[in-house]
Amino acid sequence: MLKPIKNKKIYEYVIEQIQDMIMNGAINKGDRLPSERELAEQLKVSRTSVREALRVLEVIGLIESRQGEGNFVTGNIENKFFEPLSVFFRLNKGKPSDILELRKIIEIETASLAAQRITKKDIEKLENLLNRMRETDDEEENSRIDKEFHYTIAKATDNYLIIGLFNIIPSLMEAFIKDARLKILKRAQNREILVEQHGKIFNALKDKKPKDAAKAMLEHLEFANKMMNKK
Amino acid sequence: MLKPIKNKKIYEYVIEQIQDMIMNGAINKGDRLPSERELAEQLKVSRTSVREALRVLEVIGLIESRQGEGNFVTGNIENKFFEPLSVFFRLNKGKPSDILELRKIIEIETASLAAQRITKKDIEKLENLLNRMRETDDEEENSRIDKEFHYTIAKATDNYLIIGLFNIIPSLMEAFIKDARLKILKRAQNREILVEQHGKIFNALKDKKPKDAAKAMLEHLEFANKMMNKK
Repeated sequence: MLKPIKNKKIYEYVIEQIQDMIMNGAINKGDRLPSERELAEQLKVSRTSVREALRVLEVIGLIESRQGEGNFVTGNIENKFFEPLSVFFRLNKGKPSDILELRKIIEIETASLAAQRITKKDIEKLENLLNRMRETDDEEENSRIDKEFHYTIAKATDNYLIIGLFNIIPSLMEAFIKDARLKILKRAQNREILVEQHGKIFNALKDKKPKDAAKAMLEHLEFANKMMNKK
Repeated sequence: MLKPIKNKKIYEYVIEQIQDMIMNGAINKGDRLPSERELAEQLKVSRTSVREALRVLEVIGLIESRQGEGNFVTGNIENKFFEPLSVFFRLNKGKPSDILELRKIIEIETASLAAQRITKKDIEKLENLLNRMRETDDEEENSRIDKEFHYTIAKATDNYLIIGLFNIIPSLMEAFIKDARLKILKRAQNREILVEQHGKIFNALKDKKPKDAAKAMLEHLEFANKMMNKK
C-alpha cells in the first residue's frame, strides 16, 4: 500500500524517529527512553512536540511512563484501552455480518493452529469454561464465558501477533457475542446447541486435531450467522 | 479480556469521552468535533489535555485536522503511518515464522471470501499484476507486485474490517515478502513456481471458487515457509 505524501507534523516526526530506533534495534523492550529534554535536544524540536509524541506512544501501549523514573518501552499491546477497529465499525455503520466475516477469517485458522500448540493448562482452562457454560443460566455470565473461551483458543496459538490481533477487537467481539446470543437464544433449544458446539471445538483441541478444530469453529460461526439472519 | 484498573490520565479520559461519543452515535463520520476550547469547557479539563488527546486521535487516523477549519472525524484507517504490530514484532524479536502464521490465519479465509465477492475490476487488476510478475526480472519490482497482489485480494472481500486488518500490518508484510522471496529465489527454478502459485490463486478467484482459492493460498504460504526454513 503506498503511503500518501502529506505534510508531517513535528510530533509525527518525533514518533517516526522513535519508531525507527525500535525498528533498527537501538531501543529494546524494557529500555528507558531518553528524557523529554534529551529527546528535544537530539531531535531539535520543542519539548511540547516531544511530549505530544510520548502521549501517543503511551496510548498505543508502546511505552509506559513511571512516576519519577521516566518512560520505558513496554511493547505491551494488551493494555490498550483504545480500539481503532471497534470505532471504525461504528463510523462505518457496520453490520453484525461484517464482524462475523472477520471472525471467520481469524478464528478458523486460529483454531487449527491452537490444536497443534495447546498445552495441558489451556485444555484445563477450556474444560472449566465449558463446564461453567453447561451449568449457568445467567446470560450475562454466559456471554463472558463465551468470549473467554474464544480468547483462550487465541492464546493457545502462542503467537504474540495472533494474540495481538484478538486484542485489537475486544469490544467488537463482546458486542457481537452478546447480540448473537440474544438472537440465538430466542429458540430455547439453541442453548443446548451452543454448548454442544463449544464442546465439539473443545474436543478437537484436546485431541490436537487441527482440521477438526477448524471445522468445528466454522460450523459454530455459520450457525451463529444463520440464526442472526432469521427474522 | 479484563482490562486492568489503572490510574487514568486526563488526556486518556478525554479520548474515552470522544470514543464514547462515536460509539453511541453522537458523532458521525465527516462531523466536525467541538473546538479545543469547547471540549475543554464541556469536559472540565485543561486545553493542554484536550490537545494531547486530539494528537493521539490524529495519529490513530480517527480525526483529521484541517488548517483553520477544525478537527473532523474521518475514520480513515488507511493513512496511518504508525504500525503497532510491526513495532511489537521487533520488540518481541519476532521470527519470520511468526509472520507466516499470522498470514496463514488471515489470508486463507480472506482468499475464500474474496472468491465469493470478487468484481470484474479486481480480476483485471490481479491479471495485470500477474502478467507483470511473469515479465519482470527486477526483484524490487517483483516484491512490490507480490505485496499488491495479496492486498488486492483483501480489498476484494469488500469488508472494511478485513481491509483494516491488512492495513495494520503493511511493514510486516513487506519485510516478510522481501525476505521470503530472497531466500526462495536462491533456487532459480523457484521463480517459475512462485509465478505459477500466484496464477493458481488467480484462477480460483476468477472462477469464483472459494475452496480452491483457500487451498491455493495455503499451498503458496506453506511453500514459502518450507523454503525459508531450508538451510
